[in-house]
Amino acid sequence: MQTLLNKGAILVISGPSGCGKSSLLKEVYKAVDNYYFSISTTTRAPRTGEKDGVDYFFVSKEEFEKDIHEGYFLEHAKVHGNYYGTSLKSIISSLNAGKLVIFDIDVQGHRIVKQQLHDVTTSVFITTPTLKELENRLLSRNTDDSSTIKKRIENAKKEIKQIDKYDYFIMNDNLQEASQLLVSIAKAAQAKTKLFNIEDIIKYWNKEV
Amino acid sequence: MQTLLNKGAILVISGPSGCGKSSLLKEVYKAVDNYYFSISTTTRAPRTGEKDGVDYFFVSKEEFEKDIHEGYFLEHAKVHGNYYGTSLKSIISSLNAGKLVIFDIDVQGHRIVKQQLHDVTTSVFITTPTLKELENRLLSRNTDDSSTIKKRIENAKKEIKQIDKYDYFIMNDNLQEASQLLVSIAKAAQAKTKLFNIEDIIKYWNKEV
Repeated sequence: MQTLLNKGAILVISGPSGCGKSSLLKEVYKAVDNYYFSISTTTRAPRTGEKDGVDYFFVSKEEFEKDIHEGYFLEHAKVHGNYYGTSLKSIISSLNAGKLVIFDIDVQGHRIVKQQLHDVTTSVFITTPTLKELENRLLSRNTDDSSTIKKRIENAKKEIKQIDKYDYFIMNDNLQEASQLLVSIAKAAQAKTKLFNIEDIIKYWNKEV
Repeated sequence: MQTLLNKGAILVISGPSGCGKSSLLKEVYKAVDNYYFSISTTTRAPRTGEKDGVDYFFVSKEEFEKDIHEGYFLEHAKVHGNYYGTSLKSIISSLNAGKLVIFDIDVQGHRIVKQQLHDVTTSVFITTPTLKELENRLLSRNTDDSSTIKKRIENAKKEIKQIDKYDYFIMNDNLQEASQLLVSIAKAAQAKTKLFNIEDIIKYWNKEV
């Protein structure tokens, strides 16, 4: 019954690349029935293997600009002549359907989501146990060149100072414990009183509905 | 590591008698390693079977009044000539030891704890699915006379209007789901960024400690 009464919630996850966000999120997908992972919208052409609605929502420049004009973007930016942004359309329809909307975004993106959708948003910052461990993980996964790794490290050093802007903090030094904790936070995020209309609860409780 | 860095947290549980708090809390005790269930202090004499430090902290009137004078009570009241109150002494030592301090208190008590210890406190209001179900549970457990049951029902009707003062809301219509949710909230309560000193986290992360 609980799930029938509440509105959807937002879960924002941030943390340096290499902190293990994707592995932790897999456990959330298993534990939460009804979620929507927020995907960015872009006007750039799909690369080989990229799918519309999976990697990005691919739209035309005209469509993107119309949506900007109509206030449908939570945030957007133009990079090398292409637009990138977070469209409110699928977020709002998911919230209305009572889903948990999950964002994997940076500190900047978190600030905007918290500002605009404060009451329904729960946010978590995830770190590796140490900076050294972050360097090791980035080196061992062997996907970035050394200048990209250096940039990621510098970025992580800046971002970690913003932990206090988040609701929760997870130090990912044990994958099982950290994923259990993230699952707990995701479940709690859906039980916030701010998601409920108190009048609806009382009506239901009194069996008037 | 996470648990070494954070300070203790407070979990407040409220809800009408008969909503299943005790059964739900049993699951929290199993899932949380390091908790302290807050016990009231009183100057009344122990009844048969009551134990000091289990049912109440039994103290002398002089001791109680000295503690009032020294600001050690979060709240206190005098009922039929006896003092009852919540002493901060064991709460503060438990928080300093990094424990989860659990309170089973009413709406009034919650208001005081939230006021005084806001940053470390997470609160949950628990209800039966319906008012009818509450009546059934109170009748079937056969521990209260009909005037007590009536008083409890009237009280529940008043208290449910205060749900929005709480962080979380649980409708206990399925014991297993409701207790999993309470366990999730209890675990999340211990990962709030407000429990951490951000400087400590950064020092640890940089391996300066």
